[in-house]
Amino acid sequence: MSTGHHRVVVVGGGFGGLFATRALKGADLDITLIDRRNFHLFQPLLYQVATGSLSPGEIAQPLRHVLRRQRNVMVLMGEVRGFDLGRRVVLVADAANDPVEEIPYDTLVVAAGARHSYFGHDEWATLAPGLKSIEDALEMRRRILVAFEAAEAEPDHDKREGWMTFVVVGGGPTGVELAGQIAEIAHDTVRRDFREIDPTRSTVILIEGLDRLLTEFDLNLADSAERQLESLGVTVRTASFVRDVTEAGVVVEHDGSRELIPTRTVLWAAGVAASPLARNLAEQAGLEVDRAGRVPVEPDLTLRGHPEVFVVGDMSVLPERVPGVAPAAMQEGQHVAKTIRARVAGRSGPGPFRYHDKGTLATIGRLRGVGEIRGVRFSGLFAWLLWLGVHISYLIGFTNRLLVLIRWSVSFFTYGRGSRLITGSGDPPLTTRDEH
Amino acid sequence: MSTGHHRVVVVGGGFGGLFATRALKGADLDITLIDRRNFHLFQPLLYQVATGSLSPGEIAQPLRHVLRRQRNVMVLMGEVRGFDLGRRVVLVADAANDPVEEIPYDTLVVAAGARHSYFGHDEWATLAPGLKSIEDALEMRRRILVAFEAAEAEPDHDKREGWMTFVVVGGGPTGVELAGQIAEIAHDTVRRDFREIDPTRSTVILIEGLDRLLTEFDLNLADSAERQLESLGVTVRTASFVRDVTEAGVVVEHDGSRELIPTRTVLWAAGVAASPLARNLAEQAGLEVDRAGRVPVEPDLTLRGHPEVFVVGDMSVLPERVPGVAPAAMQEGQHVAKTIRARVAGRSGPGPFRYHDKGTLATIGRLRGVGEIRGVRFSGLFAWLLWLGVHISYLIGFTNRLLVLIRWSVSFFTYGRGSRLITGSGDPPLTTRDEH
Repeated sequence: MSTGHHRVVVVGGGFGGLFATRALKGADLDITLIDRRNFHLFQPLLYQVATGSLSPGEIAQPLRHVLRRQRNVMVLMGEVRGFDLGRRVVLVADAANDPVEEIPYDTLVVAAGARHSYFGHDEWATLAPGLKSIEDALEMRRRILVAFEAAEAEPDHDKREGWMTFVVVGGGPTGVELAGQIAEIAHDTVRRDFREIDPTRSTVILIEGLDRLLTEFDLNLADSAERQLESLGVTVRTASFVRDVTEAGVVVEHDGSRELIPTRTVLWAAGVAASPLARNLAEQAGLEVDRAGRVPVEPDLTLRGHPEVFVVGDMSVLPERVPGVAPAAMQEGQHVAKTIRARVAGRSGPGPFRYHDKGTLATIGRLRGVGEIRGVRFSGLFAWLLWLGVHISYLIGFTNRLLVLIRWSVSFFTYGRGSRLITGSGDPPLTTRDEH
Repeated sequence: MSTGHHRVVVVGGGFGGLFATRALKGADLDITLIDRRNFHLFQPLLYQVATGSLSPGEIAQPLRHVLRRQRNVMVLMGEVRGFDLGRRVVLVADAANDPVEEIPYDTLVVAAGARHSYFGHDEWATLAPGLKSIEDALEMRRRILVAFEAAEAEPDHDKREGWMTFVVVGGGPTGVELAGQIAEIAHDTVRRDFREIDPTRSTVILIEGLDRLLTEFDLNLADSAERQLESLGVTVRTASFVRDVTEAGVVVEHDGSRELIPTRTVLWAAGVAASPLARNLAEQAGLEVDRAGRVPVEPDLTLRGHPEVFVVGDMSVLPERVPGVAPAAMQEGQHVAKTIRARVAGRSGPGPFRYHDKGTLATIGRLRGVGEIRGVRFSGLFAWLLWLGVHISYLIGFTNRLLVLIRWSVSFFTYGRGSRLITGSGDPPLTTRDEH
């Protein structure tokens, strides 16, 4: 596609990159969208895969499929290794695993996202998996389900308790949603499945360093979320810091004293670390990344000294605070697209980016939730219904929307979960071998 | 569950083990069903996961869930390491990964199945994955989808052709179904998704050592299947033997001369090797396993000299030939259950097992198929419709049946595939890392 058109390279097919690309539909540009994966992932529902309510195909869509009718886009599955801002090229290792290739651009949009962070304790990663990719979610699902199996087979009382104790670290929306779902699995989904153990006697503990949950939400809503979690059987421990994660359990510090919570299942929903590509950009622009590894950008989302380079989503930080949520990344992507269209047309662009807060929503298991839209707060059933509607309408692709709706309806009436398979490899060696 | 009842241990939750267990519902027995996996897998549809039409959760059901209302069964997730037929115990490593445990039995039913076989060339396994587990299917799916991505990114003509050539080894139902589906992916599903390559120009080659496909079927039907495959764009090569599989491609011998087919994607659908547990049983009973590693059993499916031990499904071989298909394993499991019920009641059992051939069916992509039921042969649309009905009605569990039907309906009208995600780790290193 060497047509002499203005070349736009978009790195990352998440909310920021995909929405920038789609908002450039019909423009007289040559766009190349590069992602390591062949699909767009609807990350806000990843916890539903981790807890067996949805299967991976229901929250992901092949990027090529989403963009198949947008003729100015070429999708490239490849891993971006870095940039040369002086020569205006992206360094990519493609799917064929050939030597690194250089892809030239006139305008660059970097939206490579973030991962969870262990606050300098990367050695906890194997014991306490996080939740950013499909593989992460399937690993969490495997661990949650294996724990009940192991408890059923364990004659020793203390060891059994360790398997029946689940610790979720991080009191943001993901941690709250995970803890609520695990409690529901224990109390409803598998309650009749075992003979030796009573799953309803499982312990689910949610740990948060601050003195409250859901810092993005109003304090009253956070209190409501805490009460709703406790009614589901979750123990919420705020102002508690994780000091160590070992095979024996989690060491938590509260009010100056330390305690070991014996558990075999620790799920990590805390901390954010931007893609290492943020540092690569910062270094070339003579900037410093912040503590979360994000690169600072100008109010119009460009890199200082490089008006042809935009950085959006979780890997950049604006002068004004913007929450790290999907709608913010979408809006940033769309803003960048407007700026590019204006420039190519020789018009003046939309100027600084401004985030439009359409509201916040979180669910806490079945029929429960909290939310705030345009200053109006609500909790319980209404929040849950609203969450359901918003998420289904956002899901990209007709098939998925319909399937997810059906899957959820069936789960709702049967308390079942359609995807309770223990697959893949992992710590308990048992599942790494072929089946009988 | 130490109630003094007759103890039945069933090893394997596939068709043989699950149907034996279910047919013992209500009997005054203590049954323990042991499987390495927590789910029953509907293996005949595994190729649909390998080609992205279905997701794993749609062809698998947790064993505990299937058996939750059968109170005489305890499910144990564990890996059986062997048996001590003298002391009547099963040696099991359970999910908690503790030392091997001994589980005593009065009656033992072993139904641990089989895997594919590389005919002594296990070194081909990494280059030519087979199709027996969910993980196998996801690995095949990954390779098929990555091949198109790699071709799109490959400027060199010959290398690109290698990525766009798919070789399926084995002309049984699985090989025929795989080859047909890959041709459909290339010609329909992804035909508009790429910019640099034309997926419809892909090459799909099906290799079979015998001089015909589908040996379980009538010759006329096999010929029809071959013609139907060719109309889909598949090149069928019978009387061709695979002599080597390398990074460069597959070496095939036909009529005494050898040829290298350059390809990056080889899928293995040939050969059967019984679970190593068959050899363990044979050795203790003073028997020899056959070339496929199966243990010979008496006409009533018991092990010679051990009337308390039954061996069913793909890991045993009867004096009279029984095909290695799901209905045979189901019928054997049910026969064993009848024998056990009779013995416990002090009645005489049903005697020798007799296989009731209800017919054979295979699909060849969308709207095509071949089949034979009670001597009546048919091919094309009617065979396909019948296949659809039979498979949906066999799928265990309401949710799955409904979801699979909807998924198939949507795919049918849109030519789409809902599960086209490249996940997991594997050869092209790209996908082994976390996403952006």
